[in-house]
Amino acid sequence: MKGLTKRSDDFAGWYTDVILKAELADYAPTRGCMVIRPYGFGLWENMVVQLDRMIKETGHQNAYFPLLVPESFFQQESEHVEGFSPECAVVTHGGGKKLEENLMVRPTSETVICSMYAKWIQSYRDLPVLINQWANVFRWELRPRLFLRTTEFLWQEGHTAHATEAEAEDETLKMLDVYRVFAEEYMAIPVIPGPKTESEKFPGALRTYTIEGMMGDGKALQMGTSHNLGQNFSKAFNINFQTREGLREFVWQTSWGMSTRTVGAIVLVHGDDKGLVMPPRLAPYQSVIIPIWKDEAERAAVLPCVDQASKSLQGVRCKVDDREQYGLGWKFSEWEVKGVPLRVEIGPKDAASRQAVVVRRDTGAKQAIPLDRLGDEVRTLLGTIQREMFERAAAFREQQTRRVDEYETLKRVAAEEGGFIHAHWCGSAACEATIKEETKNTIRCLPLHRERESGRCVSCGAPSDGRVIFAQAY
Amino acid sequence: MKGLTKRSDDFAGWYTDVILKAELADYAPTRGCMVIRPYGFGLWENMVVQLDRMIKETGHQNAYFPLLVPESFFQQESEHVEGFSPECAVVTHGGGKKLEENLMVRPTSETVICSMYAKWIQSYRDLPVLINQWANVFRWELRPRLFLRTTEFLWQEGHTAHATEAEAEDETLKMLDVYRVFAEEYMAIPVIPGPKTESEKFPGALRTYTIEGMMGDGKALQMGTSHNLGQNFSKAFNINFQTREGLREFVWQTSWGMSTRTVGAIVLVHGDDKGLVMPPRLAPYQSVIIPIWKDEAERAAVLPCVDQASKSLQGVRCKVDDREQYGLGWKFSEWEVKGVPLRVEIGPKDAASRQAVVVRRDTGAKQAIPLDRLGDEVRTLLGTIQREMFERAAAFREQQTRRVDEYETLKRVAAEEGGFIHAHWCGSAACEATIKEETKNTIRCLPLHRERESGRCVSCGAPSDGRVIFAQAY
Repeated sequence: MKGLTKRSDDFAGWYTDVILKAELADYAPTRGCMVIRPYGFGLWENMVVQLDRMIKETGHQNAYFPLLVPESFFQQESEHVEGFSPECAVVTHGGGKKLEENLMVRPTSETVICSMYAKWIQSYRDLPVLINQWANVFRWELRPRLFLRTTEFLWQEGHTAHATEAEAEDETLKMLDVYRVFAEEYMAIPVIPGPKTESEKFPGALRTYTIEGMMGDGKALQMGTSHNLGQNFSKAFNINFQTREGLREFVWQTSWGMSTRTVGAIVLVHGDDKGLVMPPRLAPYQSVIIPIWKDEAERAAVLPCVDQASKSLQGVRCKVDDREQYGLGWKFSEWEVKGVPLRVEIGPKDAASRQAVVVRRDTGAKQAIPLDRLGDEVRTLLGTIQREMFERAAAFREQQTRRVDEYETLKRVAAEEGGFIHAHWCGSAACEATIKEETKNTIRCLPLHRERESGRCVSCGAPSDGRVIFAQAY
Repeated sequence: MKGLTKRSDDFAGWYTDVILKAELADYAPTRGCMVIRPYGFGLWENMVVQLDRMIKETGHQNAYFPLLVPESFFQQESEHVEGFSPECAVVTHGGGKKLEENLMVRPTSETVICSMYAKWIQSYRDLPVLINQWANVFRWELRPRLFLRTTEFLWQEGHTAHATEAEAEDETLKMLDVYRVFAEEYMAIPVIPGPKTESEKFPGALRTYTIEGMMGDGKALQMGTSHNLGQNFSKAFNINFQTREGLREFVWQTSWGMSTRTVGAIVLVHGDDKGLVMPPRLAPYQSVIIPIWKDEAERAAVLPCVDQASKSLQGVRCKVDDREQYGLGWKFSEWEVKGVPLRVEIGPKDAASRQAVVVRRDTGAKQAIPLDRLGDEVRTLLGTIQREMFERAAAFREQQTRRVDEYETLKRVAAEEGGFIHAHWCGSAACEATIKEETKNTIRCLPLHRERESGRCVSCGAPSDGRVIFAQAY
């Protein structure tokens, strides 16, 4: 594709080029915002369908809460307001008048949802409350980047209330695992689940869990978070219930979210010099059939084969690109930059042998497939591509992951090689801050299933009982 | 259901009670806004699934444009800004600072979408552009009412661009008909499609078409609108393209929307003194099975029948309400207020005769159905209910529609009987305004398929060639 920056030359420039040229998104006239174009939105819709199904299968229902939150509500949980106030867009006028109270455009909906839960929850019989919302949210961004950091983004935010602390912790981990499965099985991106450090947790949470993925340049991306809110919000908003024993207690809460940022992850993990590579399970089109003919006679021979191919691909999201105003080369590079997993070419010679030439977007591998086996072979190939994309991403992460025990090594690896660094950390915020300051590497998470291993903090030498993951992050 | 206002005593009070008690929605802490609760959102989701499918089947794709629109964009089309500015919520601060330019929270998205179309559309090859967006929008409401008029509401807004005026008009009417079909076949509400008068059209449109439904109190509700925008916006935003012949022309545009207001229509048209009545095709639950037992022996007899019933209802959205903490009377009235189309009762006597007692929500009719025929019978009944709900609404509208030729009669009918009044109108804005002023009745539309009939304007006596529909409206 003309004008596409090479991935190895300038990863950041390549990323933006791919998004614009694949028509995933475009810059909006509103500062820091983007327009999600139909092709990008088609991908997001496929993600929503699957994640929404998984959220409902775990017992949640969708609802909708207001976009604008009275400033006073927002201020009821002190850590929360401190964390989010500087990022908020503020409505001061409405209906032609100055408002008596400012309204914040939601950066997240804990406060307004908690105000409703206080009204709805009276008894243990009302628990658990398991609600999810698909919504747009606003966080002012000083250095916006398409999908990864936009002032407005789309997401789902789950908000649950429970009778016990243990139930809330179970829910937090259950939804983290839903995110892990979604990232791995649908986005074909291996992720590491685990808690964040105190300094990186959600403002107002007791504990924040994350899934961290490695992008194609070795940097980390936080791809979804699940928070155990404890009783911080229920105390601030007075959400209490009568227990079975007749006592009044505050509920235990969780919240969890995954956003359009993950669309950026698909580009960053799977893309190459030709553009996007879509994981088949989420691809807006899983295959594109391109008929090839030069004259009417060839057209008459090819068309029936295209029809047959198209029919045999029932259940596969397939597009026939028979536009006459574009040449073959143009079409090939358009579908390459858009990352369609399989290109199915049918020309006069193929028609004569009753076959199609099928080209994999991820590997470039070509094979001729008889038309009467096309449907089965394509379905099998799509499964193979999905699996191999995951395996390649996992192998790359493995390759870009290093165990480091000395601070000098950590500094050198961080500066020269990047990737994930598994190192010991004593647990102190001071060491975490020093390392961040000196290496730009942050602690991405304490892996959930990490080995217990005695060691010494890479910064201060104090004892540690397991490694954490350092990386530069988006 | 306790505390539910009688529909015949106080229609407005009944409407609000039904929404709150059926848990469709609740008042939000943000003035004029509501929270759509899971049961109401389940209904909306079913509406979205169907309408989204119909929008896609007519060739449109979804996309997403930003919520906040720079004030200067908003001011580019003069009628548009005049119509919407007084209703806007305005963001003046963001990221802790006063903004250089105010941002309007979208009341509708023509302006920001047009700014993108100006960039994307260059040639006749880029046309038509057929994009739809599902979004939240804001219009300041002085007298908010749940679903019908809320400051924030959810909707879809289609925005298309075409090479010719005729194509734009075709699109406008095509989408109006999609709305008609959706209202009639899914919501079970008969509607009258037709153009609005000049004074009632969308600010910036050439022509606005509407579908008008009659609510249970005889008032009209505008349930969806489709606008032919002509070249008003393309000239204001400079959206031009090179024609096949190499000339540059402005595109012809349309926009069309249907919103959560239609949830209110379902309540207003089908509800009764017991609460909601859900049209089966949109009902979150189409049937609820209520097992009845008093002791363990009865429980053991009933449970296997409940399992069999539940299995036979595959493909039906069915809930088994086996909650032990609620009594039968409580459950019956809860599912009645929520309007579940069919209640399936199975008690020990039913178990002994291998049957279930099935009760229609719309008519109250009860019948015993053998378990081995339950699935088929329930599916048939759901179809019958859907059809009969439409027929009852159509019969009611017929009954509440009057042809009137004298102004005194119109005034009397408007004051004493309400409903739709078919009367002649000369086409002048002055007569329209006088009638509105004196009778509170507005012209809902000029029915698309109205008979040509010579007559005299009910207000001024000037000649008219067909009747229009007057009614009091929500």
